[in-house]
Amino acid sequence: MKHIPEHLQTLVGQAVKRIDTPALVIDLDAMDRNIERMARFAQQHGVLWRPHAKLHKSAHIAHLLEHAGACGHCVQKVSEAEALAQGGISNIFISNEVISQTKLARVAALARALNAQGGRLALAVDCEEGITRLARALQDAQAGDAAMDVLVEINVGQNRCGAEPGEAALGLAQAIAAQPTLRFAGLQAYHGGAQHLRSAEERKTAIEQVLKLVNRTRHEFDRAGLAIPLITGAGTGTMVNEAASGIYGEIQPGSFLFMDADYAANQRDPAQPLFEHALYVKTQVMSLSGDHAVCDAGHKAHAIDSGLPKLHALAPENALRFANGGDEHGVLHPDADAGNHSGWLPALGESLWLIPGHCDPTVNLHDHLIGVRGGRLKGVVERIFTVDGRGALT
Amino acid sequence: MKHIPEHLQTLVGQAVKRIDTPALVIDLDAMDRNIERMARFAQQHGVLWRPHAKLHKSAHIAHLLEHAGACGHCVQKVSEAEALAQGGISNIFISNEVISQTKLARVAALARALNAQGGRLALAVDCEEGITRLARALQDAQAGDAAMDVLVEINVGQNRCGAEPGEAALGLAQAIAAQPTLRFAGLQAYHGGAQHLRSAEERKTAIEQVLKLVNRTRHEFDRAGLAIPLITGAGTGTMVNEAASGIYGEIQPGSFLFMDADYAANQRDPAQPLFEHALYVKTQVMSLSGDHAVCDAGHKAHAIDSGLPKLHALAPENALRFANGGDEHGVLHPDADAGNHSGWLPALGESLWLIPGHCDPTVNLHDHLIGVRGGRLKGVVERIFTVDGRGALT
Repeated sequence: MKHIPEHLQTLVGQAVKRIDTPALVIDLDAMDRNIERMARFAQQHGVLWRPHAKLHKSAHIAHLLEHAGACGHCVQKVSEAEALAQGGISNIFISNEVISQTKLARVAALARALNAQGGRLALAVDCEEGITRLARALQDAQAGDAAMDVLVEINVGQNRCGAEPGEAALGLAQAIAAQPTLRFAGLQAYHGGAQHLRSAEERKTAIEQVLKLVNRTRHEFDRAGLAIPLITGAGTGTMVNEAASGIYGEIQPGSFLFMDADYAANQRDPAQPLFEHALYVKTQVMSLSGDHAVCDAGHKAHAIDSGLPKLHALAPENALRFANGGDEHGVLHPDADAGNHSGWLPALGESLWLIPGHCDPTVNLHDHLIGVRGGRLKGVVERIFTVDGRGALT
Repeated sequence: MKHIPEHLQTLVGQAVKRIDTPALVIDLDAMDRNIERMARFAQQHGVLWRPHAKLHKSAHIAHLLEHAGACGHCVQKVSEAEALAQGGISNIFISNEVISQTKLARVAALARALNAQGGRLALAVDCEEGITRLARALQDAQAGDAAMDVLVEINVGQNRCGAEPGEAALGLAQAIAAQPTLRFAGLQAYHGGAQHLRSAEERKTAIEQVLKLVNRTRHEFDRAGLAIPLITGAGTGTMVNEAASGIYGEIQPGSFLFMDADYAANQRDPAQPLFEHALYVKTQVMSLSGDHAVCDAGHKAHAIDSGLPKLHALAPENALRFANGGDEHGVLHPDADAGNHSGWLPALGESLWLIPGHCDPTVNLHDHLIGVRGGRLKGVVERIFTVDGRGALT
């Protein structure tokens, strides 16, 4: 795991107000509640949960999740898998395709290392070439028979990666089964776009379509007499539907852990546990003019791909609107629509808390997550987490 | 400076095709020409140039620029200044306000350390409180008399930070001059928004407005008998105007070094040197379907605040449109409008080169920049640069 510099290490035990800005802060009480609710949800629905570590990229947090019952972790990149493995996580699914031979050699080496510890590495594929190249890499690494689990990703509506459902997917599963170094481990069926449909009804409808495609594929496998050991997928937005389907054996939500402004904009499905915001950018006012304040967090401190951050929990008379101030600044205007009729602005040096629009790429901008207990105002710093997979792109 | 891992170090001397993806690659031939043209431009106009290191965040690159004649460097954050100083850069201007006492203690320590080496640290201020706090921090650090240069930032149209031009700015300069630990070093007058006005005429008009505000301020200083040692500002988009003004003694362009898709969309002023794209995200195709290809670079590999990346230099019949595929993917569609009538798609594993929409936050996503010489297709890796200030937010 990555190094924690001394100025952060000495924060542990200190009051929250001592955290310099901008900083990415976890409300540990809220995160713990989110974890507990997810564990209960999975248990009630009889599904495994394999959280997506592309969110937090931290081996420490992965251990907390596994301690609460997670069966392992998903990642998107080989280097994320390596970072988690180095932190002691041993059951990892790269829920994405890998084609580059350089990376496949790393995949093979990691599979061999995890197998030797009694762990397991899995990879998604969506074409024959991917299977052949992976099998060759495992052979070259002398990784042994059935050295890796391979899942066939099917395109269930995202229209990004994934083989066509049905016959094409069956062909790939058969190609996997024919390779001595590989084990066909199931189907990856995830619809990313459906996570952010705003109404619970729209998300349900989208997942009904997904289930049709998955069932069509199951039918082909049945006819061919090939068993599908597992169907896995689902994110925080739609998981109530996949979990209730009776078809998915595993769900892969990541964002439930921290939530973000984008997920908060979804209408909550009544069946969904109440997940709370647990990740904040702490920022402070560094400049004041007559009609606006400027804070020290810009889009080098939070990702803006899913919209600008929202200000957390100001009283209506103190409501502020966050406007993009570029890479290093945020511009704050009094929000009259929300009740700030006096033009109130925070003072120079005053702390503010931002809820990121999208947590995953926000975490990726930071090297550390500062965990606080007892609330953002009166709490203390309990621990520092390293973002082990920060910048893990390959 | 940061560590270069072995797998990158061994790339030096290897062919470009050996660079795994996604990776941030500098075309060193193009970068060198950009530096040479900037040095010549500054010399011809009799202005100092102090490039903005918030772009490249690399002490190695800062040394290359100073070797070519840059008088020092700008940064936006204290931690960026610390990262450059650790890499041997000793004349640094934090062209931004610092209010937090924790950070001001670091500013004072750095000023003291740089003074001891014969270097110099400068800071921008836009309010009395900032001046008082800074002076106190320098006193606490026993940094000595005139330990730091302080510039008054004036708001010349960006409407973000900055004191009002004229009397208010004069008042701040007098407050600086009254502090024994500080030296009034000039005015910071930068209009960020003007850099991206598309026509050369619009940018010229915007800077004419800036010059009016600067001149009004100079007039106040003249009346008070206080000399302004330096007026500094300007970015890559408008620098021809500030350099020709006879008022600016120093310009602060950063993006000229790499250029990006956003700056390339500006109509070039005839007086502007021809700056070339020198920074690329190398990516490769990792999935193919009937109507699109998917590459392995999403918005964790390039910033999208100023638009999606553009694909570099494909023949019209091979033109592709880059669509947002989320954090880890880019989706490539045949671009019929640009001449790809056959629906051509690149092959699995094929490399593609992306021109980022905005270089500064793109560099901040990466730990290393891979410098290649001899072109992107047939060149070799010459050196690896560490992004020393990556994630330097405080």
